[in-house]
Amino acid sequence: MPAGPRATAESLPLGDVEIDDEFWNARLETNREVTIAHQYEQLQENGCLENFRRVVDGETGGFEGPMFIDSDAYKWLEAASYVLACDDDPDLEERIQEVIDLIAAAQAEDGYLNTYFMLEEPERRWENLSIMHELYCAGHLIEAAVAQNNTTGSEDLLDVASGFADLIDRQFGPDADSGVPGHQEIELALIKLYRVTDEERYLDLAEYFVDARGQDPSPLADELANIDQIAGAEFVHHGERSADVARKHFLVDHEYDGSYAQDHRPIREQETIEGHAVRATYYYTAVASLLQERADNELFEAVTRLWENMTTKRMYVTGGVGSEHEHEGFTEDYDLPNQTAYAETCAAIGSIFWNRRLFELTGDAAHAELIERTLYNGFLAGIGVSGDRFFYVNPLETMGDHHRKEWFYVACCPPNAARLLASLGRYLYARSDAENALYVNQFVGSDVATELDGETISFTQSTNYPWEGETTIEFTHEDPVAFDLRVRVPEWADDVDTTVNGEPIEADHDNRYISIKRSWTAGDQFRLTFSHPVDVLTAHPKVREIAGRVALRRGPLVYCVEAVDHSVPVEHLALPASAAVEAKYDADLLDGLTVLTADGRASDPDKWAELLYRPRDDVEENDVAITAIPYFAWDNREPGAMTVWLQPA
Amino acid sequence: MPAGPRATAESLPLGDVEIDDEFWNARLETNREVTIAHQYEQLQENGCLENFRRVVDGETGGFEGPMFIDSDAYKWLEAASYVLACDDDPDLEERIQEVIDLIAAAQAEDGYLNTYFMLEEPERRWENLSIMHELYCAGHLIEAAVAQNNTTGSEDLLDVASGFADLIDRQFGPDADSGVPGHQEIELALIKLYRVTDEERYLDLAEYFVDARGQDPSPLADELANIDQIAGAEFVHHGERSADVARKHFLVDHEYDGSYAQDHRPIREQETIEGHAVRATYYYTAVASLLQERADNELFEAVTRLWENMTTKRMYVTGGVGSEHEHEGFTEDYDLPNQTAYAETCAAIGSIFWNRRLFELTGDAAHAELIERTLYNGFLAGIGVSGDRFFYVNPLETMGDHHRKEWFYVACCPPNAARLLASLGRYLYARSDAENALYVNQFVGSDVATELDGETISFTQSTNYPWEGETTIEFTHEDPVAFDLRVRVPEWADDVDTTVNGEPIEADHDNRYISIKRSWTAGDQFRLTFSHPVDVLTAHPKVREIAGRVALRRGPLVYCVEAVDHSVPVEHLALPASAAVEAKYDADLLDGLTVLTADGRASDPDKWAELLYRPRDDVEENDVAITAIPYFAWDNREPGAMTVWLQPA
Repeated sequence: MPAGPRATAESLPLGDVEIDDEFWNARLETNREVTIAHQYEQLQENGCLENFRRVVDGETGGFEGPMFIDSDAYKWLEAASYVLACDDDPDLEERIQEVIDLIAAAQAEDGYLNTYFMLEEPERRWENLSIMHELYCAGHLIEAAVAQNNTTGSEDLLDVASGFADLIDRQFGPDADSGVPGHQEIELALIKLYRVTDEERYLDLAEYFVDARGQDPSPLADELANIDQIAGAEFVHHGERSADVARKHFLVDHEYDGSYAQDHRPIREQETIEGHAVRATYYYTAVASLLQERADNELFEAVTRLWENMTTKRMYVTGGVGSEHEHEGFTEDYDLPNQTAYAETCAAIGSIFWNRRLFELTGDAAHAELIERTLYNGFLAGIGVSGDRFFYVNPLETMGDHHRKEWFYVACCPPNAARLLASLGRYLYARSDAENALYVNQFVGSDVATELDGETISFTQSTNYPWEGETTIEFTHEDPVAFDLRVRVPEWADDVDTTVNGEPIEADHDNRYISIKRSWTAGDQFRLTFSHPVDVLTAHPKVREIAGRVALRRGPLVYCVEAVDHSVPVEHLALPASAAVEAKYDADLLDGLTVLTADGRASDPDKWAELLYRPRDDVEENDVAITAIPYFAWDNREPGAMTVWLQPA
Repeated sequence: MPAGPRATAESLPLGDVEIDDEFWNARLETNREVTIAHQYEQLQENGCLENFRRVVDGETGGFEGPMFIDSDAYKWLEAASYVLACDDDPDLEERIQEVIDLIAAAQAEDGYLNTYFMLEEPERRWENLSIMHELYCAGHLIEAAVAQNNTTGSEDLLDVASGFADLIDRQFGPDADSGVPGHQEIELALIKLYRVTDEERYLDLAEYFVDARGQDPSPLADELANIDQIAGAEFVHHGERSADVARKHFLVDHEYDGSYAQDHRPIREQETIEGHAVRATYYYTAVASLLQERADNELFEAVTRLWENMTTKRMYVTGGVGSEHEHEGFTEDYDLPNQTAYAETCAAIGSIFWNRRLFELTGDAAHAELIERTLYNGFLAGIGVSGDRFFYVNPLETMGDHHRKEWFYVACCPPNAARLLASLGRYLYARSDAENALYVNQFVGSDVATELDGETISFTQSTNYPWEGETTIEFTHEDPVAFDLRVRVPEWADDVDTTVNGEPIEADHDNRYISIKRSWTAGDQFRLTFSHPVDVLTAHPKVREIAGRVALRRGPLVYCVEAVDHSVPVEHLALPASAAVEAKYDADLLDGLTVLTADGRASDPDKWAELLYRPRDDVEENDVAITAIPYFAWDNREPGAMTVWLQPA
């Protein structure tokens, strides 16, 4: 999947990058062998594939699952297709083909495809975009089709997706109906479809959807005014009438308020990131992709402003976003509660999507850095070590009642995690033919064979990241190729040392990239080492819940403390300013983790038993050993309380 | 108002105590001259008295105000009657009589009295106890009548109240209809009525209402099942149908949940304090009064358990209670957010009511101590210095958008504050004839003339409290009387010194009372001095929002910092453990306050501008002078941010 012509760089194609990494191998294998297999079983069991079969058989009624259940199949297809980009798996290929055939058979003659409407309300397409997710499902179909086509070259699913996209293009746009999807997704998908088909109308339609949002009057407001009468109103979702669900999300004091779906004002006028976090990040992913295709300074300023608002005022230290449950979304600047954090796994994924496009667009290492932070913390916590248990919600503190589940009725997170993991190779490297540059953005062991400005290059990256601050890139292509090797240096890294073929190289990295322009050929070895300090982080004083509190970060990993490692309740633990924090790799703990330990302090819980407030001087503190593990690894042992932010002492 | 026979002590009658105190004089004068006068104007303007006039004139319809607006008149009458207990004011007396005459004229022949029902739905009395406040208003009528009778001996209003109480007694009870008021108040009022009339049936009815609550099935649940059809359903309160208001308060997931009004289980089985904080504290006030009349170990254990739960897990450091706005009530243990605190002024008042009864019942100084804490902090903050502006809600931190208002549509707090201030004399002293003891519970300058076990005693208390830790009691009665003088020593006080007639006296105060048994006569002088330290308070680690943070308290006063006194935003202020805190009285500041100052630290707000998290070592802190004023005095100068809890440093 190339980036657009206005991008600074494009991510390497997935098939060019084969991951072979101490940290990630087991996780990716579990994703392939357990998660994706498990998801397929779920598609069989939860009614998803049965819905398609009923459509094929010409039945009516009997739809099962949430209104957007079709997207489960599409996300599975997308993830499974990514797997095939790097691995042969004839069984999986066959299974994919069966699902594609089923989907193709279910498509209506005019290109329409949505099992809820085809089974339940065939005459009422497009009436209820606010909550019924028709365009959202269409977007996931397109993403699956593009992934499938990229991997296999097959056009089977691409034909289905194009046919549906053409129908949507006839239905909506400046010369057709006004419409805005209640959940963004189709915008980013249409740009992908444009890139594989070169059909400009898909790009135009994406741009239409981007700019139609937030206009006054909003087409969604019209739907809400009539929500009890339109299609889907009586559909029961999570035990509630979908009309009531829509009302809850889109009305404030009985008035339409589109901020839940970023429909409160045109994006060009949006100052702060608002509403449902997955909707927001998918939307801005599309906007960043669009900017790779078409210059638009105003739009660029808007998306930059929203990114800055998110990263400087509305983001957890884990990269997680979305402070509250009710709207699964953003709230106010500096409102970042820990126990009631939403920080949905899908929103972390959406942020990673968005930042990849922004990186391609600008070449700014800040986006690669945020991908790293989110990937290793806010995202990875969402997946249990066993690979088949998931967090939908990722609090930064719990009293012990939050645990991963096998699956969810609203099953967006597990398949979303699966497709991100299966396409992880796409997030590691980028290239710029114009600048004749190769970007190394993430430190993940991998074998790469790709093209740069028409020349073939190949190399192996070897690293013990995230446990150590070092990586080695050894080139393997026989014909020398001159280019600029740009390797990201994390913002927190000190003592940066660089060698080429063992010789120290002076290289500045003010822009967070080491840049080495030379001819590279087989046997050339670039090596980067940097300090991997434990930082004691503190938060902006306006984040009131953690004012004065501290969190441990080592390298890219945010740490947390769990009850299982401590003899006093975790909320009693305090880290003195003078405490030395030791890092030690424990190969036996949860498949291997670097654990942090420190001499901490804790007041005696018994002495607090019947007191709520008391003079600080009366509080006797005792020494206590603090053990912190990476946040991503929490809730994989004995259930209990956890906190990222510790008391100071 | 005597306590019941099972009480350890009874508060001195209001007329026996004339306050003359540096700190309180101006406040009580403002209460008399401004607040109570202002409230009378409100009764004229807001429709309250007009509703009674329309009833007298035999009109129908036209009811104005919230459904419980009758209680505004009753609370005003109660407060005004208390004023007359200590001061002659013929104009006020006349005004009171006019209102009493109006109320008496409005009463129905059978004793019924409620202007909403009489004007709007005369045939539908008692149908909707959950939200329409009939019994609540009846309770306030009774309290006003008792106050009036205690002060003047007049039976005019007492006859009205007794007539209505008799009707209620015929309507509800074990041998009549089942009923529970949606807002407690009548229970405590009926016990007062019993004490002035000696009619046991009022005590029986109070006991019935106490124990009928929380039974299964609940009469309130029956109402809720039918809430759209019963009386008052269409009455619009705060812009909402009252049926919808009731549903919001009493239903959780469409099921009845009485916890809002402590109707979720019988009080004897309640383990934690739940629901609307004013309802809860009024309820438990009645329970504590009932226990003064009738022995009931199970009930005593329940009310003690609930008090302990509140004071050790659900109370702000100011004594304020009620953590959240939606239900104006209690939430969970240790859930005490600062910016979104509700801590309603009326709930602080309710807690003071409750604790006075508990003190009388047990003689335990802890209750007097909590009255002090709540009085000087959570309660007093509710009233602006000018006396005619009020807080309904008392956050412990604000970014600058919370200010006192002149009046409220739901005008419970201002008249409630007025009646507490006007009856403050009742909270200072108590006596026990059985133990031949006089309790001095609060340090408030006053002239007292009372009876103890048949003997006449009189004295003057002189003090500069709360600014200094000292008080002097000089007796003035001519005939010597031997009794036990018990003077409370605050829990935080050290260096306690006691003299009698200038001679040091050794007296232990393990139970928080200095006890001196001797003969006292005119000229005898008891003097108590104690340290008045500045304590740096810290909170239980489970109160996550303030984990590790500190608050300043001097004597009984909790302090806060306001934007107006600081050059950096208050959330940046940090108090180092080593900082010395200086106390200095400033006679010019807001009529005189002791201000605390300390050398604090603050990180540079500009350097945080575009950062959300950063290593603690990178945060440069600068010296900054911290100025703290008593929490009760905040928001009386330039509007701005405020916080009680500071960062440590």
